[in-house]
Amino acid sequence: MTQKKAYDELVSRLREVALLSSCGSVLGWDERTYMPRGGGALRADQLAMISGLMHEKFTDPRIGELLSILEQSDLVGDEDSPEAANIRETRHDYDRYTKLPRELVEELAKTTTLAQGEWVIARKNKDFKHFLPWLEKVLALTVRKAEAYGYEGEPYNALLDNYEKGMTVEQVSATFEILRVELVELLNKIREAPKRPDVSIVEREYDVGRQRIFGESVAQAMGYNFDSGRLDVTTHPFCTGIGPGDTRITTRYNPKRLNDALFGTMHEAGHGLYEMGLEKETYFGTPMGESASLGIHESQSRMWENQVGRSKPFWRHFFPQAQRLFRDSLGGVKLDDFYAAINNVAPSYIRVEADEATYNLHILLRYELERAMVKGDLKPADVPGEWDKRFKDYFGIEVDNVANGCLQDVHWSAGLMGYFPTYSLGNLHSAQFFAKALEDMPDLMDQFEQGIFGNLREWLRKNIHKHGSRYRAGKLCEKVTGKPLSHKPLMDYMYAKFSEIYGF
Amino acid sequence: MTQKKAYDELVSRLREVALLSSCGSVLGWDERTYMPRGGGALRADQLAMISGLMHEKFTDPRIGELLSILEQSDLVGDEDSPEAANIRETRHDYDRYTKLPRELVEELAKTTTLAQGEWVIARKNKDFKHFLPWLEKVLALTVRKAEAYGYEGEPYNALLDNYEKGMTVEQVSATFEILRVELVELLNKIREAPKRPDVSIVEREYDVGRQRIFGESVAQAMGYNFDSGRLDVTTHPFCTGIGPGDTRITTRYNPKRLNDALFGTMHEAGHGLYEMGLEKETYFGTPMGESASLGIHESQSRMWENQVGRSKPFWRHFFPQAQRLFRDSLGGVKLDDFYAAINNVAPSYIRVEADEATYNLHILLRYELERAMVKGDLKPADVPGEWDKRFKDYFGIEVDNVANGCLQDVHWSAGLMGYFPTYSLGNLHSAQFFAKALEDMPDLMDQFEQGIFGNLREWLRKNIHKHGSRYRAGKLCEKVTGKPLSHKPLMDYMYAKFSEIYGF
Repeated sequence: MTQKKAYDELVSRLREVALLSSCGSVLGWDERTYMPRGGGALRADQLAMISGLMHEKFTDPRIGELLSILEQSDLVGDEDSPEAANIRETRHDYDRYTKLPRELVEELAKTTTLAQGEWVIARKNKDFKHFLPWLEKVLALTVRKAEAYGYEGEPYNALLDNYEKGMTVEQVSATFEILRVELVELLNKIREAPKRPDVSIVEREYDVGRQRIFGESVAQAMGYNFDSGRLDVTTHPFCTGIGPGDTRITTRYNPKRLNDALFGTMHEAGHGLYEMGLEKETYFGTPMGESASLGIHESQSRMWENQVGRSKPFWRHFFPQAQRLFRDSLGGVKLDDFYAAINNVAPSYIRVEADEATYNLHILLRYELERAMVKGDLKPADVPGEWDKRFKDYFGIEVDNVANGCLQDVHWSAGLMGYFPTYSLGNLHSAQFFAKALEDMPDLMDQFEQGIFGNLREWLRKNIHKHGSRYRAGKLCEKVTGKPLSHKPLMDYMYAKFSEIYGF
Repeated sequence: MTQKKAYDELVSRLREVALLSSCGSVLGWDERTYMPRGGGALRADQLAMISGLMHEKFTDPRIGELLSILEQSDLVGDEDSPEAANIRETRHDYDRYTKLPRELVEELAKTTTLAQGEWVIARKNKDFKHFLPWLEKVLALTVRKAEAYGYEGEPYNALLDNYEKGMTVEQVSATFEILRVELVELLNKIREAPKRPDVSIVEREYDVGRQRIFGESVAQAMGYNFDSGRLDVTTHPFCTGIGPGDTRITTRYNPKRLNDALFGTMHEAGHGLYEMGLEKETYFGTPMGESASLGIHESQSRMWENQVGRSKPFWRHFFPQAQRLFRDSLGGVKLDDFYAAINNVAPSYIRVEADEATYNLHILLRYELERAMVKGDLKPADVPGEWDKRFKDYFGIEVDNVANGCLQDVHWSAGLMGYFPTYSLGNLHSAQFFAKALEDMPDLMDQFEQGIFGNLREWLRKNIHKHGSRYRAGKLCEKVTGKPLSHKPLMDYMYAKFSEIYGF
């Protein structure tokens, strides 16, 4: 068999899996947008069947054989070639899928389904004891999963690698630890600062129909293509890249808050631009046509949401339009006051409601605790005490109850240990990429002021999107910015912004 | 292997096929409702893959083996038992799928795809010659298909059996021929009648938002369950029974015509009630959980659209609500005038725009010509001449051009010969079933007047829906009405209605 034949067969098998997956994406989108309530049981059966077919096709030993042939071929000579990247990343995923014993996969699925139900009850009753045995079970299975994957160093590496290929705790912690120290310092400065934004400005009446018009025009300006996409309403907003020519986003509208839908739409449209920027026409179904990692994906959404959407130049362009649309609520408001309001920082209990400055502290706290649990250094029973202690240290406030503390997130009950870091990796990358974009295009902020976002979008496409999984996150960061990932660009960006707003 | 084991294996294999099919239904619904334009190519690939998987699973020789075992078992003892029905109908479909040589299936798919494109051009240019070679090709392949299926009598029987299992030209023609004679007589009476409805009443301004409210409230009154269904907008309205708990319908609104969306919605909701009334919780995936035939399906939609929706008692209940919603257009209108307007009869060229009285003549004409073509009695080149001659005989008007004549429908280019009769079979069944319902519930029309439709719906569910494919159409008709299908109930119904409206 020639290497070309083997490679073509591999690609054609991967495309089949991807085509099945894309059917699942449509079903998933429909489930969350328009499916009538009564269709829930059927939908679960449909999605389970599609998962089963995908698993069957992707774990076919023939894929392993093809990979073994290709790994000995010329195709892996240049490790940055599309072929080498596809072979490397497919091997990674194939090993992941085939290393877990079927019995463990089933046990994990069953236990996490039950644990999520018990977590809901425990959170509702603010009763950690109720959740404790389930946390213990999920943790034990998760450690077994890490062992099955195999790892160097500590078992958490195996979990991290599930969501952020090739990333290790050494790399993550090196950045996260200094980030934490500096964020706590920044928060202290903000707490003692003389100025305070008037957040009531963005908590007035904001007509939902007009919010929709505004959100769509912002997404359009960003370059989100409505001929290949849609914007719908769901309880939990998301972006789904169904396949070539079809990338959909959702948002939710709060008639009393401008921020939620607006920045939510920009966030999801940022994910959407990444999906639209991948070279799916050529590489659909292979790693080259997929995002580099969850963290890199999140860097795209956060950049458009924060570095762009919460910048003053952006609002120099869009504020007049917002004032016209929401005359009663924004008519007499000054741009600077509006800008301060959308950038308000306030330590709070709940991660998903956190502002740009405190958000990463929520993540770092979770990362530290889950890593310690997986390592065996922290018993599940001791999680609430440790959580509350660290929360006080980092945020300066006392946790009032466990529902506002360690029971707030679904992740641990769902077995998603190793996932949290990707959120902060996204924020770190967004700042580092954006700093580089500013270096390459010094007039970028002036462009925003004129409503021009195409140059940033094309820069992202050229430097990040079109590469798909050619480079892993760490290498991509070095290729794009010339430096390894660092806390500095994010902290510099925040200091510049918040020192002005808070006057310190 | 016990017969129970064999039966259970058969059912589980059929369920898998049905689950795949239901995924295809969601994808098909999405394609026609919300899919962004750019997703078209991917969608074609997804649907082709699902078809391929379904075909692979359904034509698995194991299904043939199981059927052979089961056909020798006690399970077929009572031919009306669910098991016997499932075995009988699965055998029918299995033979259909396995008898066609792969090469013929592919040739048909390719040729009809091209032929449909050429048909569009021919119709646009009113140029039958352009279409002629394609009609000849499709016809030749269709005859080959009939030969591959096998048949008794003439080859058209094999095609008819594709859409209306077990039905033969002898049965169809016996009813259709007398129906045609009587319809032509009725049309002559209407043409010479003294009274004429004022159709301008339903061709005024009808606000689309209010049409939607009205249509939804009518569908709700019929018993269409919005917890297990939806009503959306598409260019070509349809109903899709995705699976248990999920049946969706669509309509289209014309701001200058009340009839289109209203009766279209009732039509699709009638299909929807059939789907919702099938015992899918128990029989999903097997013939017992599926409609008896296309003709029976159409009888349900046409009954709600015509026997109910175009009846005076229905409007005694709904007209005041319609007047409140459309005050400018209906405010001063008398119920009798409105009733006459929605029942206007006028011979016209286009089938899909035809009224209740002329509709079946359009069908009979097509049936006669396609049957003659398949038999070899009519050459494709002679179709326009024969069409125009018969059209003049039946409708009393001359066809002005071929686009308004034999080039108006997509069916022949798509290889759907044998399909047209199901429309008229639906109309015939609707009248015969409804006459029986009236016999069983003599106050049914009074119930309509009070807005009560639940008793008709339950009668249909009990007598028709819940049986699925237990009985084929002919037998179902006899079981329900005590008589074989006849043209009389439909003609009686029309004479009663139109003699009053037209005063003859």
